[in-house]
Amino acid sequence: MLQAIDNIHDRQFLAAELASSATLAAELAQPEIKNILLAASGSVATIKIPEIVKALARHGDKIRIRIILTHFAKHFLGGQSKEQPVYSSLLDYPHVEAIYDDADEWGPEPWQRGASILHIELRRWADILVVAPLSANTLAKIVNGMSDNLLTSVIRAWDTDSSIDNKKKVIMVAPAMNSAMWRHPITAKQIRVLQEEWGVRDPEPSEGDTAGVAVANGWFQVIMPIAKTLACGDTGGAMASVDTIAEAIESRLGLE
Amino acid sequence: MLQAIDNIHDRQFLAAELASSATLAAELAQPEIKNILLAASGSVATIKIPEIVKALARHGDKIRIRIILTHFAKHFLGGQSKEQPVYSSLLDYPHVEAIYDDADEWGPEPWQRGASILHIELRRWADILVVAPLSANTLAKIVNGMSDNLLTSVIRAWDTDSSIDNKKKVIMVAPAMNSAMWRHPITAKQIRVLQEEWGVRDPEPSEGDTAGVAVANGWFQVIMPIAKTLACGDTGGAMASVDTIAEAIESRLGLE
Amino acid sequence: MLQAIDNIHDRQFLAAELASSATLAAELAQPEIKNILLAASGSVATIKIPEIVKALARHGDKIRIRIILTHFAKHFLGGQSKEQPVYSSLLDYPHVEAIYDDADEWGPEPWQRGASILHIELRRWADILVVAPLSANTLAKIVNGMSDNLLTSVIRAWDTDSSIDNKKKVIMVAPAMNSAMWRHPITAKQIRVLQEEWGVRDPEPSEGDTAGVAVANGWFQVIMPIAKTLACGDTGGAMASVDTIAEAIESRLGLE
Ligand SMILES: Cc1cc2nc3c(=O)[nH]c(=O)nc-3n(C[C@H](O)[C@H](O)[C@H](O)COP(=O)(O)O)c2cc1C
Ligand SMILES: Cc1cc2nc3c(=O)[nH]c(=O)nc-3n(C[C@H](O)[C@H](O)[C@H](O)COP(=O)(O)O)c2cc1C
Ligand SMILES: Cc1cc2nc3c(=O)[nH]c(=O)nc-3n(C[C@H](O)[C@H](O)[C@H](O)COP(=O)(O)O)c2cc1C
Repeated sequence: MLQAIDNIHDRQFLAAELASSATLAAELAQPEIKNILLAASGSVATIKIPEIVKALARHGDKIRIRIILTHFAKHFLGGQSKEQPVYSSLLDYPHVEAIYDDADEWGPEPWQRGASILHIELRRWADILVVAPLSANTLAKIVNGMSDNLLTSVIRAWDTDSSIDNKKKVIMVAPAMNSAMWRHPITAKQIRVLQEEWGVRDPEPSEGDTAGVAVANGWFQVIMPIAKTLACGDTGGAMASVDTIAEAIESRLGLE
Repeated sequence: MLQAIDNIHDRQFLAAELASSATLAAELAQPEIKNILLAASGSVATIKIPEIVKALARHGDKIRIRIILTHFAKHFLGGQSKEQPVYSSLLDYPHVEAIYDDADEWGPEPWQRGASILHIELRRWADILVVAPLSANTLAKIVNGMSDNLLTSVIRAWDTDSSIDNKKKVIMVAPAMNSAMWRHPITAKQIRVLQEEWGVRDPEPSEGDTAGVAVANGWFQVIMPIAKTLACGDTGGAMASVDTIAEAIESRLGLE
Repeated sequence: MLQAIDNIHDRQFLAAELASSATLAAELAQPEIKNILLAASGSVATIKIPEIVKALARHGDKIRIRIILTHFAKHFLGGQSKEQPVYSSLLDYPHVEAIYDDADEWGPEPWQRGASILHIELRRWADILVVAPLSANTLAKIVNGMSDNLLTSVIRAWDTDSSIDNKKKVIMVAPAMNSAMWRHPITAKQIRVLQEEWGVRDPEPSEGDTAGVAVANGWFQVIMPIAKTLACGDTGGAMASVDTIAEAIESRLGLE
C-alpha cells in the first residue's frame, strides 16, 4: 500500500513536471490527445470509477486520464471486494497517468514561492473535468463556492469564461445519491444553479438563439440520475449508467 | 474508554441488524414504541443532553432513544465534571439504545455493496429527529444542503414528503448560541428557511387553510431560544429549557 | 517547535486571563491602545503576514496584535524559506501578543461551565479584525454563515450592531486568490454580500444620507485585490499591497 502510494507520487510529480515544462510543445505536436480529469466524491457509485476508466480504454492512444478522489470516495475503493479494487490499481491502465488525493495538494514539500499549485496545474492540464459520482455534499459545496479540498479547489478555480486557458472546457457532473437525498427540495434548487446559471447551453440552439454565445456561456453539464433501486434499498437518484457517462465524455471531446 | 466504545459499537451494530431484519414485524407488534433520534451539535448546551434523556425516562417503555454527537459536541461530554459526564454513560439508561459518532458511519469494516448505510438506517428507524442543541454551524450546513458528517447526512437524507418511509416524520431543532451569533442577521435568514420554506405548519390552521395540506407540507420545527445569560457572559440565544423541549417531543409523538 | 508552541500557549492563556480580569480598567487607563486581531486563511498571500506586522510596528506603543491562522494558512509559514519564516517567530515583535490556531479553541483543558470561550474572548478583545489574506473558501464560509474553525467562529460571533461590546468594530478583509477563482461569478456575488448587505458605508455619505446611520449599519470592509501576476502564473486576484492594508487599518483605527 505504502509502496503503491510512493509510486503514485513518483508518477504524478514526474507527470506534473513534464506537464509544466513541455505542455505547449506537446500540445502542438499531438493535438489529438485529450486530457480527462476524472473525479469521484463520496457516493457508493464511486465503485463505477474503474468501469468508467475501462469504458474509455478504447481511446487509449487519444486520451490521458488523471483521477481525483475525495477523502470519502477513497473508502469505496479500498480493495474490500473484486468490484471494489484498491484505487491505486487503476494506474495499471496505460491511459491513467496519476491519482490524486487531498494530501497531494499540500505535499510532499511545504509550498514555497515559485512552486506549482496542484489544483491550478490540474485545471490547466484538463480538457474536461468529469465528477462521477457527484455526492450531495460536494454538490452543496460547489454551489456555495466552497473549496476545502483538492476537487472543490479545482472546480472553484475553473476557467469559467475561457479567458485564461483560452479553450472552452466544461465540468461534467453525474449526481448519485439516495432517493430521499435526491428528492429533498434543496437538490433541485442546487442542480438548477449548475444547469441554468452555470450550465452549458444545448449546442443545437433553439431558433432565435445565437449559438456561439449560448455555447460559450456556461461551463457545467449535468448528467441526470436514473430511477433504479440503490444500495440503500430505496429507489431513485442512482448515477447515470457508465455507458451514458462515457458517451457524454466522448461526445463533448469529439472522440470516436 | 476504549472498552466503553467497544460496547457502544457492539450494541449499535446489534441494534442495526435487528432493526433491518425485524423492523416491520416489530412495528406491527408494538405500535406504541416511538423511536427518538436525539442529536447534539457543538454548543455548550450539549451538556443538557443527559437532562433531556432523563426527562424522557418516564416514557421508558414507550420510547427508544439513539443519540448522535457531532465531533465537537463530544468535547462537552467527556467526564470533565459532574454535570458533564462522559457520554457513553448515557447507555446506562434502559431507553437509550446506542450512541453514534462520525466514525460509526464509516466503520468498523469498509463498506461493501449490500452492507447497510448508517445515516439511511437511522433515518428509517427514527420517528423523529431532535437536534438539541443546534449550533450556528450545523444550522448553516443544513440550510446550505451540506452533509459532511453523520448528523447532517441523516438530515440531508430525511424523507421530506413521507414518500419513502410512509410516515410523517419531523426534524425538531433547538438552536443554542452566543447572543452575538444569534443576533447576526444570517441567523434569522437561515431560521426562516427552516420555518417558512421547510417548516411544519401549525396544526391549528388559520381560516382558509387546508389543515392536512399545511401539516403535510413541512418537516422542520424550530424551538426558539430564550433570553438568559449564557456561558460566555452575554445574554440571549440560550437553548429552550429541557422542559420545553421534552414537552415538544411528547406533543409531537403523542406521548402522555 | 513544541517548545515554541508551549510558549505560545503560556502567553495566550496569560493574556486571556489578564484580558478578562482587567479589560475595563485597562481600557479606561490606556484609551489609546487598539487591539488588532489579524488573521490569515489559506492563500499564498499568507506570506505577507510578517510584512503587515512589520508595517504596523511603528505604532508599537499604541497597538496590540493577536494573530489567528487557519489550518491551511499555517502551511505557508513553516520556515521553508526566508520570506516564509515559522509563524511562531512573529511573537518576537513586542506588539504581537499571541498566535492562535484551531487547537486553541478546544484546549488544552476540556471546556467546563464557567471557563472562557476563545472565539468570544477574541471578539470582545478586538477593536478590529483584519483577514488578510481572505481565501475563496473562507469567503464562502463567511457568506454562508459557517463557523467550523476558530477564525470563522469569531466572524460568526461578531457584534454586528454594536449592541454587545458597545463599540463600532469592523471586519476588514483582503481577498487573495488565483485569477480564475477571482473571475468565477460566485466571487462577485459573495463579495457583494459583504459590501452591500453587511458593508460599512462610506464615512462620507452622499447627500441625503444620515451619516451616523449609514456608518453604524455595516460591519464589513473589503479591500479589493489588484491585478498582478500571481504565484500560479495567472494574472489578477492578488491581495492588495501591504501598504494599502496597513493604511486602511490605520485610517479605521485613527492611528497616526
Ligand atoms: C456507505 C455510504 C454510502 C454513501 N453513499 C452516498 C451517495 O450515494 N451519495 C451521496 O451524496 N452521499 C453518500 N454518502 C454520504 C457521503 O459520503 C457524505 O456526505 C460525505 O461527507 C461526502 O463527502 P464528499 O462529498 O467530500 O466526498 C454515503 C455515505 C456512506 C457511509
Ligand atoms: C467552548 C465552546 C463553546 C461553544 N458554544 C457554542 C454554542 O453555544 N453555539 C454555537 O453555535 N457554537 C458554539 N461553539 C462553536 C462551535 O463549537 C463550532 O462552530 C463548531 O465548529 C460547531 O461544529 P458542529 O456544528 O459540527 O458541531 C462553541 C465553541 C467552543 C470552543
Ligand atoms: C499552494 C497553494 C496555494 C493556494 N493559494 C490560494 C489563494 O491564493 N487563494 C485561495 O483562495 N485559495 C488558495 N489555495 C486553496 C486554499 O488553500 C484551500 O481552498 C483551503 O481549503 C482554504 O482553507 P481556509 O479558507 O480554511 O484557510 C491554495 C492552495 C494551495 C495548495
